[in-house]
Amino acid sequence: MYLSSVLENAVNEFSRLPGVGKKTAFRFVLHLLKQEEGRRKALMDSIRDLNEKIISCERCHMAADTPICAICLSNTRNQHQICIVESLKDVIAIENTNQYHGVYHILGGVISPIDGVGPDDLNIESLEKRIRESEKAELIMALNPTIEGDTTIYYLSQRFKSYPTTISTISRGVAFGAELDYTDELTLGRSILSRLPYDMSIKK
Amino acid sequence: MYLSSVLENAVNEFSRLPGVGKKTAFRFVLHLLKQEEGRRKALMDSIRDLNEKIISCERCHMAADTPICAICLSNTRNQHQICIVESLKDVIAIENTNQYHGVYHILGGVISPIDGVGPDDLNIESLEKRIRESEKAELIMALNPTIEGDTTIYYLSQRFKSYPTTISTISRGVAFGAELDYTDELTLGRSILSRLPYDMSIKK
Repeated sequence: MYLSSVLENAVNEFSRLPGVGKKTAFRFVLHLLKQEEGRRKALMDSIRDLNEKIISCERCHMAADTPICAICLSNTRNQHQICIVESLKDVIAIENTNQYHGVYHILGGVISPIDGVGPDDLNIESLEKRIRESEKAELIMALNPTIEGDTTIYYLSQRFKSYPTTISTISRGVAFGAELDYTDELTLGRSILSRLPYDMSIKK
Repeated sequence: MYLSSVLENAVNEFSRLPGVGKKTAFRFVLHLLKQEEGRRKALMDSIRDLNEKIISCERCHMAADTPICAICLSNTRNQHQICIVESLKDVIAIENTNQYHGVYHILGGVISPIDGVGPDDLNIESLEKRIRESEKAELIMALNPTIEGDTTIYYLSQRFKSYPTTISTISRGVAFGAELDYTDELTLGRSILSRLPYDMSIKK
């Protein structure tokens, strides 16, 4: 290779990022080279901070830089409404809707025997502790609609049935703006089975 | 914002990369968070190396980690054939064709009075030194076909006319695979003016 090994190494490292090939990685590196030293240092420091400052919230397991995350500490959030998600990505997706004002609990995965993931590998112990300490928790299951997601919801509902909690799942059905004839059979079939009474007040 | 400032900062830094928006930057950061610490450290180190180890080749000004770059040191390269380019990006593009076996000289820009870039702002002094030291240099101008590129070629040809150098420019014309009726008038017009004698031997 005609390039300096330092450049090549940087290209290799950047091409590990999701959706980044060698060509894009090279563009990143050329761009960084053209910047002044301070800009490269800022990027470097931000990655170092990911290593050194990011910890897991003791309550909900979200990535945070304080022992308890901002959402768990917030007094404008309903601390009795706990939305159970698989990962941080899902928290972001739900936060972006601006429709949810409770707190979260990140499981860190779903029960998947085929991948060797059992209940003990997930953050369920700490969830049970939260439920035990809360008088009237409402659990909202926001797991991906897969076999593993459904299995996990079933497991949790069985495990927590002795507590005075209400358990709901996010609704599934035909997406807004989607066309019926392009919706897959499973989704369309379920959306008929789980039809809702028509309510004028929520019509937009 | 509901996110840790450390995460937010990392997202901001990554979104400065070319073609990367907040959403992609966020995907990068989430991906990095999921990796083990060593992977993040490797990316960090590769950026630090860009700061600490990359220097400019004393001869051709290419980014390198040795005082003289690998191409300038190579004895399989024709050291008398100097391809003059604007930036490292152009070197990569030409190297990827596998058609060139000479060396390079990176100007670091083109003459552009409107941007306040004059001959003294470019690596022309060092180019003249190379030409003076070489008995019979061949200069191949591979600058972008713009007014500024053409001005720079003209300037260099005037400046070096007292040396026994041959100067050529890369050919310009209709791209391979392009269609005549979609080619812009300037390119098509020039390709007729600079028509070449038909040579069976270079026909592919």
